[in-house]
Amino acid sequence: MKKRVYLDHAATTPLDRAVFSAMRPYFSEEFANPSSIHGRGLAAKKAVAEARKKIASAVGCNADEIIFTSSGTESNNLALVGIAEAHAYQGHIITSAVEHASILETVAHLKRRGVSTTIVGVDAYGRVNVDDVKAAIRPDTFLVSIMYANNEIGTVQPIAKIGGFVQKRGIAIHTDAVQAPGLLPLSASKLHVDMLSLSAHKFYGPKGAGILYVKRGTAMVPQVRGGGQEHGMRSGTENVPGIIGAAEALGRAERNRPKESRRLAKLRDWLMAEIQSRIPHAQRTGHPAERLANSASFRFPGISGEHLVMRLSERGFECSSGSACSTGGVEPSHVLLACGISKNDAQGSLRITLGASTRLLHLKRFAPALAEEVKKLQK
Amino acid sequence: MKKRVYLDHAATTPLDRAVFSAMRPYFSEEFANPSSIHGRGLAAKKAVAEARKKIASAVGCNADEIIFTSSGTESNNLALVGIAEAHAYQGHIITSAVEHASILETVAHLKRRGVSTTIVGVDAYGRVNVDDVKAAIRPDTFLVSIMYANNEIGTVQPIAKIGGFVQKRGIAIHTDAVQAPGLLPLSASKLHVDMLSLSAHKFYGPKGAGILYVKRGTAMVPQVRGGGQEHGMRSGTENVPGIIGAAEALGRAERNRPKESRRLAKLRDWLMAEIQSRIPHAQRTGHPAERLANSASFRFPGISGEHLVMRLSERGFECSSGSACSTGGVEPSHVLLACGISKNDAQGSLRITLGASTRLLHLKRFAPALAEEVKKLQK
Repeated sequence: MKKRVYLDHAATTPLDRAVFSAMRPYFSEEFANPSSIHGRGLAAKKAVAEARKKIASAVGCNADEIIFTSSGTESNNLALVGIAEAHAYQGHIITSAVEHASILETVAHLKRRGVSTTIVGVDAYGRVNVDDVKAAIRPDTFLVSIMYANNEIGTVQPIAKIGGFVQKRGIAIHTDAVQAPGLLPLSASKLHVDMLSLSAHKFYGPKGAGILYVKRGTAMVPQVRGGGQEHGMRSGTENVPGIIGAAEALGRAERNRPKESRRLAKLRDWLMAEIQSRIPHAQRTGHPAERLANSASFRFPGISGEHLVMRLSERGFECSSGSACSTGGVEPSHVLLACGISKNDAQGSLRITLGASTRLLHLKRFAPALAEEVKKLQK
Repeated sequence: MKKRVYLDHAATTPLDRAVFSAMRPYFSEEFANPSSIHGRGLAAKKAVAEARKKIASAVGCNADEIIFTSSGTESNNLALVGIAEAHAYQGHIITSAVEHASILETVAHLKRRGVSTTIVGVDAYGRVNVDDVKAAIRPDTFLVSIMYANNEIGTVQPIAKIGGFVQKRGIAIHTDAVQAPGLLPLSASKLHVDMLSLSAHKFYGPKGAGILYVKRGTAMVPQVRGGGQEHGMRSGTENVPGIIGAAEALGRAERNRPKESRRLAKLRDWLMAEIQSRIPHAQRTGHPAERLANSASFRFPGISGEHLVMRLSERGFECSSGSACSTGGVEPSHVLLACGISKNDAQGSLRITLGASTRLLHLKRFAPALAEEVKKLQK
């Protein structure tokens, strides 16, 4: 059997071998609880502290500004609910229509709890207009949350511009940066953000390890209470191997970023042109220039994206129709709808996200297979 | 250097080799996101479903009654806040004075949110009196949360009796069973509980993997929102290797329980008698009979438990003074205080918890070392 070609790196990535090696001792020999005060407990505590420093260095912040969580979703929930609770669920927050479900569902929850909410729209490329955010700000706005890059169509948002403006107004700004590591710079100060969410399994780290950067002085109430781990902001025995893995993976993603993001962008550009030439009626989705280096996305009028994904999987190619993070959804993508695409047209969407294992030869096999399957489904 | 002797299994346990082997493929080859609909996504989804069935079988419940979380702490938080939110933070809950911080801190939070709370006391052995729970029940009581076995002094609570009574009254009952696997039977129906928390790293599974059993029909509002994983009760990409490891570890704990709990009880009884004979003024803490098979706990008047732990660590023996789950605490244990021990007397406490690697020869080395260090510190 031919090796399967994985083109779904926005959904998740395989654990890097070197990251696994770094994690490995912490499962068995160095397994102690970092809260224990005996020798191996202190060793585990030290390892977690070192990992926190590494993450802080990649984000360009202080170690005490990093909170380890269990996922990007938990990080996003904590950012929004934590600050809303600190504001007694009173006041106003702004987000965008193309956010991940973990933001939009949480915003809906906050709305039910009494918070006022504004969801700003996007242009046909899925991009937020900075002026729309400016216009939405009210005297009682305490948070703006706009994602760094979209998980479905790859569109990169003008976060630094939005952040600069929002911070000057004394309002907190959060960004869901889950798709960014290894592809976009992460510096919290250059992005002008107060909170930033990451998830290790999106950058060749382990599942079960999320990160939330929270700038000193940001009002925040913990959402998981207990032993007081994570500076009291998120209790529970630390997932030591997960934390070690997240730090190792983020360090590697940052080091490899300049070279690897150029390599991926080149492959991606080749692929997009090839698909367009083989399937002339294919419609590109997302922004033509401001997009993640590894992300290609299309829609094919008149067919089902889910069927297409299943057919391609049978041929050994793994990609996605919209977001993998919403389970078993048959609803059309809220992201495509926000871009002004009709419910019907949004059905035939395909997301191809490249990664470390992707080579041109894979794409040269993939493009004709895709063209064939689209043709078959359109009959 | 002599091999270190780990006697702190209530804090955490090393990952079992066989459990690690079961997890391993899910880091790399079978790494896909269970929400992806391509081949490897479906394989990951199936693996998670199988793991859920295994856990359900150990707990004696249906697979859809198992929620995977990131820790015992998160499970405890979700149980309490989830049900309180379903009751609009109105009404009354009952817990005990010897619960883990993840229960007591959450109860304090719920109190601030408007929930009425009763914290029942314990006897000198740390045991809850069933009649005290009965007496505390009010017409608006919607939850009773009593731990199965104490993490500091090993005392086992009469959960089946409390549960039987509480369930008959139509009130939900939760038990923090984090210390139980491998040592006590877990059957939710025999324990008469509606919710039960577990944490894989306490039974030779991985850190970062918690479990919450929630009986069908129990009112519960999710606390982490997003893609709708875990039957909508806890969103976020599944920690697939962690879930596989938790299931494998729980299955093994249950299979080994009859034999291993007898072995540990025998070693523990030997150790407690030996310590008592070498240090006549040592005061046992916890219940003489109703205690976890692996747990020995003492206090030594006039010395600092923390110093004792550090001295023992220097000699290669790793144990604990009170709970490891509360970080850097210098406060005396709330568990010992609840047993009626004075603040001063509670300082010199020591917890020795045995596990799979513990052999009589280790304890034969440990007991005289402990006696020596206690003597030195008392000077």
